[in-house]
Amino acid sequence: MVARNFRELLESRWKLGNFLCVGLDSELERIPESARKATVRETILSFNKEIIDATKDLVCAFKPNPAFYEALGGEGWAALRETIDYIREVAPDVPIILDAKRGDIGNTNAAYAESAFDFLGVDAITVQPYLGSEPLEPFFRRAEKGIIVLCHTSNPGAGEIQGILVEGVPLYKVIAQLAASKWNENGNCCVMVGATYPEELQDVREIVGDMPILTAGIGAQNGDLEKTMKAGLDKNKKGLIVNASRSVIFASNGKDFAEAARKKATALDSEMRKVL
Amino acid sequence: MVARNFRELLESRWKLGNFLCVGLDSELERIPESARKATVRETILSFNKEIIDATKDLVCAFKPNPAFYEALGGEGWAALRETIDYIREVAPDVPIILDAKRGDIGNTNAAYAESAFDFLGVDAITVQPYLGSEPLEPFFRRAEKGIIVLCHTSNPGAGEIQGILVEGVPLYKVIAQLAASKWNENGNCCVMVGATYPEELQDVREIVGDMPILTAGIGAQNGDLEKTMKAGLDKNKKGLIVNASRSVIFASNGKDFAEAARKKATALDSEMRKVL
Repeated sequence: MVARNFRELLESRWKLGNFLCVGLDSELERIPESARKATVRETILSFNKEIIDATKDLVCAFKPNPAFYEALGGEGWAALRETIDYIREVAPDVPIILDAKRGDIGNTNAAYAESAFDFLGVDAITVQPYLGSEPLEPFFRRAEKGIIVLCHTSNPGAGEIQGILVEGVPLYKVIAQLAASKWNENGNCCVMVGATYPEELQDVREIVGDMPILTAGIGAQNGDLEKTMKAGLDKNKKGLIVNASRSVIFASNGKDFAEAARKKATALDSEMRKVL
Repeated sequence: MVARNFRELLESRWKLGNFLCVGLDSELERIPESARKATVRETILSFNKEIIDATKDLVCAFKPNPAFYEALGGEGWAALRETIDYIREVAPDVPIILDAKRGDIGNTNAAYAESAFDFLGVDAITVQPYLGSEPLEPFFRRAEKGIIVLCHTSNPGAGEIQGILVEGVPLYKVIAQLAASKWNENGNCCVMVGATYPEELQDVREIVGDMPILTAGIGAQNGDLEKTMKAGLDKNKKGLIVNASRSVIFASNGKDFAEAARKKATALDSEMRKVL
């Protein structure tokens, strides 16, 4: 068996023209009544399965955020793991990103890497840069996995810290430079830049060359898709993972939620293909 | 019933002269053979119970790190929650800090706050500053909880990002200034500074006044306890939460592990009382 490799899986999806990433932020309270089952675990898993089935041919990645699962305790973690198993079963070519935004000292990051890659079995994880290079090593040494460092996030006020000028250079560019020059020895470093900041996205693309960039915020956070594509694609018109979460998975609150998710994902996919 | 309040619980422990925080980084592989039970969940819970019983009169807080629990999936999360329940039962005056180092956009941080405070029931959480003020609001609005922002961490190379000069001021001081001037409206902001950096700890103390500072790294990471106390205590000789994890909980690999943990915790406690 050939080991799964995040970058290779991603490249195979980009070849198909797929750039959309569906964020499985499956907040229990927002799951439609019609999708409810006897237990929390079944409700979340069955909702996710329908979303995955409805969108799996359109995406370059799925991206569950563990916050929405761990708030439900052991049942939530079980549903998260089963969701990942299900993606690997029905869409084995689609890489899975755990949007965990983890960042601790080295021995603790080793435990987080074990949790993400060995227990859950995802292909990539998002991580925090604030502690510096040294504690990220337990992530980077997993050469077949994608390690996506937060660079410029999508939230309002992201620039408060990330835009701080360091000898005239904003901090997010310093992080992008570290990603390009120091953290990519194993070819597995990626960065995250919010779609709500297209100028900063373009700046980062210039620094990181053809490194994959995960971008979030085109849906509920109102990022502009065309601007995002133009700013974020690399020279070969690849390199972007364009996430939408709530706008796709909660596109309808009715029985037609999976159909509505597909419709929204198809619309985003078409819009992106037009730019390409 | 009066609601638990992190700051009040902490003050009541400081009054007793307790400054030690025991970090429950209960990595399964390092739990002594003699403490093993039939299941992972029972092994971790029973190990933690013995450590808690052996040290609860000596501490100002307990601090589990979720990394070591989530790597074990649902069983790990169950053990974490049961550990927290146990502390609240046998040591109701000892506050519990979840050392989760979480940091995401606002709606996701709301889920993390729910996970920590409502599902697990801890009194405080550690958080990342990189995304800025706005997404931290779902944490800060929980006025009775402690929100501990990473300022200068204990790891080698922490200064790579945290020491970056912003108009001549290192970034960790910028964070400390934000904590003191902007994030403490509800009186529940705290900061984390590594004991391996006593000069930086002293700098931060000067900025934050009598704000609680969580400091880590005096045990396995070789921070100097006397220097830490002198640099980190506030004007009233309070304000510090001095964490030791592995050096206490894994003090012995034999049947005497709980006794050895108490011995180590007592030694640290005595050393701290000497400085006071």
